[in-house]
Amino acid sequence: MNKNRLITLLTDFGLQDVYVGVMKGVIAQINPGLNVVDLTHQIPPQDVAAGRFCLMNAYNYFPLETVHIAVVDPGVGSHRRGVAVEFAGGFLVGPDNGLFSGVLSQTSAISAVELTNKKYWRTPAPSTTFHGRDIFAAVGAYLAGGINIKELGDVIDPNSLVQLSMAEYMQTDEGINGCIQYVDRFGNLVTNIEAGLVKNGNWCVVVGDISIAVGNTYSDVKVGELVSLTGSHGWVEIAVNGGNAGDILQIGVGESVRVIWR
Amino acid sequence: MNKNRLITLLTDFGLQDVYVGVMKGVIAQINPGLNVVDLTHQIPPQDVAAGRFCLMNAYNYFPLETVHIAVVDPGVGSHRRGVAVEFAGGFLVGPDNGLFSGVLSQTSAISAVELTNKKYWRTPAPSTTFHGRDIFAAVGAYLAGGINIKELGDVIDPNSLVQLSMAEYMQTDEGINGCIQYVDRFGNLVTNIEAGLVKNGNWCVVVGDISIAVGNTYSDVKVGELVSLTGSHGWVEIAVNGGNAGDILQIGVGESVRVIWR
Amino acid sequence: MNKNRLITLLTDFGLQDVYVGVMKGVIAQINPGLNVVDLTHQIPPQDVAAGRFCLMNAYNYFPLETVHIAVVDPGVGSHRRGVAVEFAGGFLVGPDNGLFSGVLSQTSAISAVELTNKKYWRTPAPSTTFHGRDIFAAVGAYLAGGINIKELGDVIDPNSLVQLSMAEYMQTDEGINGCIQYVDRFGNLVTNIEAGLVKNGNWCVVVGDISIAVGNTYSDVKVGELVSLTGSHGWVEIAVNGGNAGDILQIGVGESVRVIWR
Repeated sequence: MNKNRLITLLTDFGLQDVYVGVMKGVIAQINPGLNVVDLTHQIPPQDVAAGRFCLMNAYNYFPLETVHIAVVDPGVGSHRRGVAVEFAGGFLVGPDNGLFSGVLSQTSAISAVELTNKKYWRTPAPSTTFHGRDIFAAVGAYLAGGINIKELGDVIDPNSLVQLSMAEYMQTDEGINGCIQYVDRFGNLVTNIEAGLVKNGNWCVVVGDISIAVGNTYSDVKVGELVSLTGSHGWVEIAVNGGNAGDILQIGVGESVRVIWR
Repeated sequence: MNKNRLITLLTDFGLQDVYVGVMKGVIAQINPGLNVVDLTHQIPPQDVAAGRFCLMNAYNYFPLETVHIAVVDPGVGSHRRGVAVEFAGGFLVGPDNGLFSGVLSQTSAISAVELTNKKYWRTPAPSTTFHGRDIFAAVGAYLAGGINIKELGDVIDPNSLVQLSMAEYMQTDEGINGCIQYVDRFGNLVTNIEAGLVKNGNWCVVVGDISIAVGNTYSDVKVGELVSLTGSHGWVEIAVNGGNAGDILQIGVGESVRVIWR
Repeated sequence: MNKNRLITLLTDFGLQDVYVGVMKGVIAQINPGLNVVDLTHQIPPQDVAAGRFCLMNAYNYFPLETVHIAVVDPGVGSHRRGVAVEFAGGFLVGPDNGLFSGVLSQTSAISAVELTNKKYWRTPAPSTTFHGRDIFAAVGAYLAGGINIKELGDVIDPNSLVQLSMAEYMQTDEGINGCIQYVDRFGNLVTNIEAGLVKNGNWCVVVGDISIAVGNTYSDVKVGELVSLTGSHGWVEIAVNGGNAGDILQIGVGESVRVIWR
């Protein structure tokens, strides 16, 4: 069947080199009519956890059947598998290293294949260091054009896909103990505590010995002041109105935070 | 009427997070056939003046009817309005905080609406922190598809839109007193003095006690030397042939410069 | 003839300003149906050699007839020529300053013209500082739409195009003396020694007095260790498994390296 599915790209390739452009060239060589959207290419090098978080927060805003190609791949050239996964919202293509385990914690895999069919690679003799170009971009382009996922290789059990677990939050008598899982461009500190757990306003966030008031939006506090809120991604966040919470609190990914009931 | 208008995006979201990608996903969910061009996403966080300047220098190079979505939004979630504006060259969509006042100093608004019709939002219950995703991207996609601007909400007086005035230049007997309004990637210092005011070659720019010769292009002076010229944006600029004027002069936005008649 | 050729853009304009967006606007004004892919805009300012290297490593992954517009242009506004070149894989458009000499060292020019026909410029009176917008984007858009290259100006001898020679490697009794020609986002050090020269495994790379073992991929050595390999671009490279070779070895572009037969 001939399809024209949207493709997204998420990588740690950065934008200074031509790696991302070359992946788009490979896609255009296979199917010049496809549209490609960049999610981000600024995942810190080989930081699979950050890639997992970013993809998990983005996939849901795309049309059904979108093909998400993600390449953060410290194991390129080794024995880690390349995979394609079908889920209710679309498809995932990339290395099997946990990068997709955030998306798949929110929605189930319908089917999965290991990318063993070289017919859908750019070349049957791929480089050992750039599978993004030689395998994943090509496979993603064929999938976006309508190839059945089962054509791409051997069917595997979705439960066999590598899981990358985030630090778990823990509910206590006093509230919830969690940690920072991501810091964005504005210095907003995104915790691993789901927004749904703190629906009423009777809570605050405590970092070290600093207690941070809750608001609905940044401007509920004065410029320069800290505020806790449930962010647009669906997590409890710490922000500063007109400023950078990461800089002010001097904390980053992995550090402990607590929600306290008031 | 079914249209396929070009969309541009200008934000302060940066490229490390998935915010820009998600806006493009929302646009594609509404209308997968639309084309989107990035103006820039590197506006310094919440710097409305820089966003105003960049949009003012870009809109005129796009096809008629282009929809420019711009989001530099320190007041997100507060009572600032979201607006859409029609002008002779196309449409503007974003927060009413002065971001559009540069474009509208060069061309008049034909009509304007406050974005109150939730039918054209991504969701009737938008987040309080990401209107770029939940309101502006969605409204822009509908507008690019041909929706009449009047459908998007309550008609407002274009004169009621927030003005953000730049520092004014002042003509004196000796020349023109102005200031730096923007520094670009190359370190070129763009003043707020319009190129049309210095058409003849009988002028120079003075910064502190340094007098800078006028040229037509960078290579009119030796490599490493300062040159004043009328830049491609239409403003008097200070540059260095093969170098960075901002680094050499150690000045930035807001600092005084003078044009002196010779 | 009406064509819809893909366009690529490679510049040193960076992404903080609207220069790249404006070039895409000019292309859309001329032909709104064209697709544009960014190769990179992060070439260091005015570094023609880096632009030459990046374009040489990317062009071959694009569809036939792709139009590559490249603008790294220290001589803008001076007497350097603007050119378009046809080769077996597509077209090159930009300043004649050596930027295309990498591509043309791998594939021959079929024809070349100096861009003298102002009919295909954005304006017959281009700015002296932004030919990317006023000449190259416009010419590239017409070429992508199917204009015959001969229409764009005066035919010139391809042999008259400016050559930018990279440092040559030198074969010795003991191996090959070369140098670093590029450092990528991951800190991988790309030499000027072609991968084809070291096909068998009986070699290693020596930097100063450090001898670096050969592998097929990064993970052939322990995390944190140096490895030499033939990279995806087709050159001998030095990398670190999970790390940054440039940081560890503290060397950069132009520094000497040796391949030694073992």
